[in-house]
Amino acid sequence: MKEVMAIIRMNKMNQTKKALADAGLPAFVALECLGRGRGLINQEVLKGAAEGNEEAIALLGTKGRLYPKRIVTVVVPDADVQKVVDTIIGVNKSGRAGDGKIMVMPIGDSVRVRTGEAGEAAVS
Amino acid sequence: MKEVMAIIRMNKMNQTKKALADAGLPAFVALECLGRGRGLINQEVLKGAAEGNEEAIALLGTKGRLYPKRIVTVVVPDADVQKVVDTIIGVNKSGRAGDGKIMVMPIGDSVRVRTGEAGEAAVS
Amino acid sequence: MKEVMAIIRMNKMNQTKKALADAGLPAFVALECLGRGRGLINQEVLKGAAEGNEEAIALLGTKGRLYPKRIVTVVVPDADVQKVVDTIIGVNKSGRAGDGKIMVMPIGDSVRVRTGEAGEAAVS
Repeated sequence: MKEVMAIIRMNKMNQTKKALADAGLPAFVALECLGRGRGLINQEVLKGAAEGNEEAIALLGTKGRLYPKRIVTVVVPDADVQKVVDTIIGVNKSGRAGDGKIMVMPIGDSVRVRTGEAGEAAVS
Repeated sequence: MKEVMAIIRMNKMNQTKKALADAGLPAFVALECLGRGRGLINQEVLKGAAEGNEEAIALLGTKGRLYPKRIVTVVVPDADVQKVVDTIIGVNKSGRAGDGKIMVMPIGDSVRVRTGEAGEAAVS
Repeated sequence: MKEVMAIIRMNKMNQTKKALADAGLPAFVALECLGRGRGLINQEVLKGAAEGNEEAIALLGTKGRLYPKRIVTVVVPDADVQKVVDTIIGVNKSGRAGDGKIMVMPIGDSVRVRTGEAGEAAVS
């Protein structure tokens, strides 16, 4: 059992939700957050900063802006992890910086509150 | 050490917080989210959809609505995990769809910022 | 690869973000939450409650208030975990109750949506 957590553009949430439901994975949690990745790395700026060029160092310093993003979390049996990852990439990959990131995390156990079912039965 | 993360009805947050504190587990994080589970599964609709019945397939398609929920996160020593799970189920189990889900996740380490204490000392 | 999740005071978010960026760790997710820790433990009250003193038990009961906090999440290669923890403590340690908590969690895999890069390449 794994938790798949994706940080995506806020305007991709509905499409992502729909694509997961269409793939037979309707259980879904969405959160609002602020975030940023490493940004597209400008090698010239990096090189300049490493050489102590003050202008380049200042440019690196401006990379602190946070953007409103959405976090989407899905808990699935191990066998469905790749399907979740592929579905999220399918909807969110535009090739531009800010497309987001997907993390796959181990889950020790899962319990459905209504029935007390535990383990993979609780998420499938 | 484990993180116990529960997705519960928004109107159950105060009772859940109180029940955990009464059980000697006052450390608590609560977040707002939107979410849904798999829903109560209608076997007839599922069977119809599997047989290619268009009406049944359309019914499956309507199951995409997200509801405001709350996420409750508690980090505890392994010995307290069952107590947390039982306490959350005790307050949140109504037997109706939407009661929520509990996930138990491994924690590698935990640090209390004020003192620098690490490991189980930081969460107990 | 690890997820480092810190619960911090809301007014420490900008400093924390800046300190992480200055340490070469600009990728960052921030969430709003409500939370509380165990509070500073008053040994006399605890002792009194254990002895059945009703006044002490009532005092314990008042410790249920939740405060607005921020959750900061950073995913880094194992080699950077200590740097993240030290950076967050450096900015957030005041010595008063409420300084927050840091959790280090295992990550199974990570994927950069834009390029499909997986593993540590996705977070560095």
